Amino acid sequence: MKNILLKIEYEGSGYCGWQTQKRSASRKRPSIQETIEKVLGRILREKIKLSSSGRTDAGVHAREQPANFKTNSQMPLKKIKKALNGLLPADIRIKSISPVKDDFHSRFSAKSKIYRYFIVNADYCPVFLRSCAHHITAPLNVSLMKKEAKLLVGKKDFKSFQASDKIEKNSVRRVKSLKIGKKGKLITIDIEADGFLYNMVRNISGTLIEIGRGKIPAGRLKYILRSKDRRLAGPTAPAKGLFLWKVKYR
Amino acid sequence: MKNILLKIEYEGSGYCGWQTQKRSASRKRPSIQETIEKVLGRILREKIKLSSSGRTDAGVHAREQPANFKTNSQMPLKKIKKALNGLLPADIRIKSISPVKDDFHSRFSAKSKIYRYFIVNADYCPVFLRSCAHHITAPLNVSLMKKEAKLLVGKKDFKSFQASDKIEKNSVRRVKSLKIGKKGKLITIDIEADGFLYNMVRNISGTLIEIGRGKIPAGRLKYILRSKDRRLAGPTAPAKGLFLWKVKYR
Repeated sequence: MKNILLKIEYEGSGYCGWQTQKRSASRKRPSIQETIEKVLGRILREKIKLSSSGRTDAGVHAREQPANFKTNSQMPLKKIKKALNGLLPADIRIKSISPVKDDFHSRFSAKSKIYRYFIVNADYCPVFLRSCAHHITAPLNVSLMKKEAKLLVGKKDFKSFQASDKIEKNSVRRVKSLKIGKKGKLITIDIEADGFLYNMVRNISGTLIEIGRGKIPAGRLKYILRSKDRRLAGPTAPAKGLFLWKVKYR
Repeated sequence: MKNILLKIEYEGSGYCGWQTQKRSASRKRPSIQETIEKVLGRILREKIKLSSSGRTDAGVHAREQPANFKTNSQMPLKKIKKALNGLLPADIRIKSISPVKDDFHSRFSAKSKIYRYFIVNADYCPVFLRSCAHHITAPLNVSLMKKEAKLLVGKKDFKSFQASDKIEKNSVRRVKSLKIGKKGKLITIDIEADGFLYNMVRNISGTLIEIGRGKIPAGRLKYILRSKDRRLAGPTAPAKGLFLWKVKYR
């Protein structure tokens, strides 16, 4: 059995998310995982199970999602990559393919993950950014956002930023860095952590946006964090602005 | 009557092109022009006719398409812009709105136009470029393309690069500059001219691509130009790589 790692880029707009879910009347869109597994299965003539670094939600994109699979196929990796990119829909692409050690697992071997949230802060949203950035017309005070964001770096209990319907027992995570960048009208929020709670990046982004537009006053973030109360933080920022940016391994 | 100039950005993928055409069974997609005219008409409660700097074909995009219209409305321009961007589909955006002199015409007042053609030269096409760049896997010799392209600058008869089904009597145009850029896997061809023949940019781009991949030998371009024979030039490059980039006025 060989263990093979794919690095995958996708636009999530047309999918129900990374993970394959049970088909239901309400879910008409395929998952990214099942889309790739089907094509891989056809190419390798084997049933393939992909293990990714983690799920991404419906509408969330990936600049680089690692996912590995085991196979008995002797097909050269270059050929597999070419066939995948030839057969996959244009909103999913394989950036690289490489052999990894037997015990490598895209999720459990990860050291940290980086997510990036894109905001267009302008009176209109450029047409080519419409599916990959959150558009906000109200001017954002980026230097205030930067200042407040420092509070979120370190090993903390992020319970206030956890989706209220998917509670994990242990909500302590270590945020290694949180960087806010601005280039023209484009604002980016980069968060690197050893792990993320469900909706954590979108809830932090939504809260930082509320701080930037003055809806949450400066100084309040400390209290929100301490309160461990999701209701005090800002709203969940839309999925379309979020990218799984990079996963780091040992 | 006021004369008002819009600068418009659009992704052409979902449209039959800029110009309103007679509806036919084969044409199901709306034009960009009629889409904006309808929304403008609703906002100003007047029948509006937009005059653009020129048509763009089905699937061709614009970074900045100027189009002016006459109106009796007293509505503040800022308000018109806001209403337009609120009501237009997300693949069309008004970048700016400004009053212009009575005799200003987006097409006839233009001094020159710049088109940009985007090529992704890599083994796969990044997902967010899939609708706005032409993907070529064969490696392109960009320095050769640059060298040959110099021949196309100046006042020349571009008959060899004119769509064979839309012949204009006078096919002499003045190409002010032709610049080929490369940044990573992205190649751009910028052509500025006082006027363009139908499909001229796509035919020049298609020919330069054939030169870059060695299908048209170095030195042949001179002969293609002189021959005034469309059949000797390269194929028409796909619409999706083309942007109306900028229109210059006196």
